[in-house]
Amino acid sequence: MIDVSKVNFEKLNGLVPAIVVDSKINKILMLGFMNEESLKKTLESGETWYWSRSRQELWHKGDTSGNIQVIREIRYDCDVDALLISIEQIGGVACHTGNKSCFYRTLKTFKDERRN
Amino acid sequence: MIDVSKVNFEKLNGLVPAIVVDSKINKILMLGFMNEESLKKTLESGETWYWSRSRQELWHKGDTSGNIQVIREIRYDCDVDALLISIEQIGGVACHTGNKSCFYRTLKTFKDERRN
Repeated sequence: MIDVSKVNFEKLNGLVPAIVVDSKINKILMLGFMNEESLKKTLESGETWYWSRSRQELWHKGDTSGNIQVIREIRYDCDVDALLISIEQIGGVACHTGNKSCFYRTLKTFKDERRN
Repeated sequence: MIDVSKVNFEKLNGLVPAIVVDSKINKILMLGFMNEESLKKTLESGETWYWSRSRQELWHKGDTSGNIQVIREIRYDCDVDALLISIEQIGGVACHTGNKSCFYRTLKTFKDERRN
């Protein structure tokens, strides 16, 4: 296990992106941002804490909605500047819109035969 | 389908994070960043183009390695400031380290019984 201080927060002015996946159904629920303090709180509590860029404050996911995220595993990438967090989503809904996942809309679909 | 100009690139000084998933095995391969120009090239070509933060240039994934990413679907999130891209990974390897996924290391695992 690496030291939290070795995570590279410099590339995004103190933040790293965190991909959040439902551990049971392997579905991508959301992408949040963490600073060093929120990552420490996440590791200590076993629940996700993010840095809210709009509110400029630490944000314990689920504080308002009750839909907290109980962590199963945290992975980090080759450059140590992105996180992948597997969670159990309490309440089943991660998105503030009421959708299970924040990625509920399609920008573009490409046909399989495109390259044939 | 939304207009690319409606994607919110402002929150990260012209960039949005793009989560990249292997469409066949539903495995998260990497996280890259796109600016508006790289997203346009991605949509036009059906292959991923990123903005390299270290080299400060557009980067067509696979140009060097041959491991291009053929896109099946692009989704966007509730705030229109993150993308989820399902791809077919040519060569089977997304990470420059030779690993299939960039997220090949674990930071911490939490026990299932933690909250019981």
